[in-house]
Amino acid sequence: MSHSKVIECVANFSEGRDRATVAAIEDAIGSVAGVAVLRAEMDSDHNRSVITFVGPPDAVAEGALRGIGTAVQRIDLRKHAGVHPRMGAADVVPFVPLEGATLADCVAIARRTGEEVWKRFQVPVYFYEAAALNPDRRRLENCRRGGFEKPSIAPDIGGPALHPSAGACIIGARKLLIAFNVNLKTDDVRVARDIARIIRASSGGMPFVKALGLPLAGRGLVQVSLNLTDFEQTPLHRVFDAVRREAAAHGVEIAGSEIIGLIPQKAIEDAAAHYLQCENFDSGRVLENRLRALE
Amino acid sequence: MSHSKVIECVANFSEGRDRATVAAIEDAIGSVAGVAVLRAEMDSDHNRSVITFVGPPDAVAEGALRGIGTAVQRIDLRKHAGVHPRMGAADVVPFVPLEGATLADCVAIARRTGEEVWKRFQVPVYFYEAAALNPDRRRLENCRRGGFEKPSIAPDIGGPALHPSAGACIIGARKLLIAFNVNLKTDDVRVARDIARIIRASSGGMPFVKALGLPLAGRGLVQVSLNLTDFEQTPLHRVFDAVRREAAAHGVEIAGSEIIGLIPQKAIEDAAAHYLQCENFDSGRVLENRLRALE
Repeated sequence: MSHSKVIECVANFSEGRDRATVAAIEDAIGSVAGVAVLRAEMDSDHNRSVITFVGPPDAVAEGALRGIGTAVQRIDLRKHAGVHPRMGAADVVPFVPLEGATLADCVAIARRTGEEVWKRFQVPVYFYEAAALNPDRRRLENCRRGGFEKPSIAPDIGGPALHPSAGACIIGARKLLIAFNVNLKTDDVRVARDIARIIRASSGGMPFVKALGLPLAGRGLVQVSLNLTDFEQTPLHRVFDAVRREAAAHGVEIAGSEIIGLIPQKAIEDAAAHYLQCENFDSGRVLENRLRALE
Repeated sequence: MSHSKVIECVANFSEGRDRATVAAIEDAIGSVAGVAVLRAEMDSDHNRSVITFVGPPDAVAEGALRGIGTAVQRIDLRKHAGVHPRMGAADVVPFVPLEGATLADCVAIARRTGEEVWKRFQVPVYFYEAAALNPDRRRLENCRRGGFEKPSIAPDIGGPALHPSAGACIIGARKLLIAFNVNLKTDDVRVARDIARIIRASSGGMPFVKALGLPLAGRGLVQVSLNLTDFEQTPLHRVFDAVRREAAAHGVEIAGSEIIGLIPQKAIEDAAAHYLQCENFDSGRVLENRLRALE
């Protein structure tokens, strides 16, 4: 990537069961020159997919628009059910600064993309996190409260009624986020909800952690679904250990964990160093990091 | 690094206390055009230093020769003591294939370097691992048995007497190795020796693991000093967990661990995925890996 600014977009769509729809959205995004789709994944319990793509600012914005357009055409929220809260066919579309880019660049991209979503598709838009027009709307949960069926606040652009089948689109700018799920060996969703409440920042838990307790009926398990909004301040391994400790207090074991989308290398390195109790670890210990520094 | 073959050399010298000597060796190695010194570290208890450098084949061979020459000038084994076994001032010099290179390339470099060490410095040479001339000498321990004071076998080149102050040099070719120490909260070296014996391949333990139990008098601890000769077959985290389990059986806790030299990224990723119990991890999950694949 020889471009001076690289932007990541981690778009969440309300379809996690029909492969053809997710593939159509992915193809639409990838049809823009300069955009590289890094990852597309779908979750059947959440009935939700996440497509991660990168590129220079204008290309990523156009990729997002084409993906949103395809989702609006193909997803009807009136027929959609899943355990994850949602407000739109193209539910959440955050832009993230990577190499050479700033959060301010991403706010500008989010605002421009939002205007265009209303203009092209007649889908109203909320702006969240760093792109919020109103401090009350910084938090995604505040924009999405009530969901598609009963939105509790009016959109920032368009509306006030939502699009009849595609709802609204929540567009934002934010720092790199780690989305991580921990699955627990119980079918009692109260355990996952208890743990989520103890862990998350909003109820006095760990800073920079969002958490939801969800049933995973398909697997007979429950899940603590986590977002880490600043993994350098609250490391992934510390959150995982806290979930494990709280689960143990309920007499429940961990079945496994899942990374959603992509994870920064530093979070992996920090976790390895922590669990190996390594006293002298730093990124410069990793052979490949040293070889790349010579390039 | 635009060269088609990249070779790593992880040279071990019998000086871990005098910074000036280690710096002189490092400078001699780094004086060769095309050589990059990635890491130099010294251990006072071992009285030993490890200098890791990379470059194209001819440059790395010449870097090794200049480093060996400086070690021969400055280190007198008659005055050397340390907890780690050793045979020479420049004790062990393995060449490792990295990008574009094969183990056979490294055997050729090792043999050529060995001839030159005898010619330039009158230091006899043993060849070990893939560069061994005799299957009995593949294992480093077999070459080094008896140490500088009482070598048990004659050198492959030069000798038969060792150099009076600089001993012999053991030169080899091998795959990437992880050198890793685990320090234990006890001053009873028998615990470290017991664990090393249980863990290491040569006494029926884990395949591709070498282990020694050593006192760390400087810290009032003992150490299990480990070499993993194929970390993809016997992962680092599995070895660490085995040491922890055996230590617990002795009622001893782990004080911490240390990586010596550099560690391949895959070992770090595998450890993180293991401890985080991540069911869907692969290298493609790491954001930076994906961005580099686009370059």
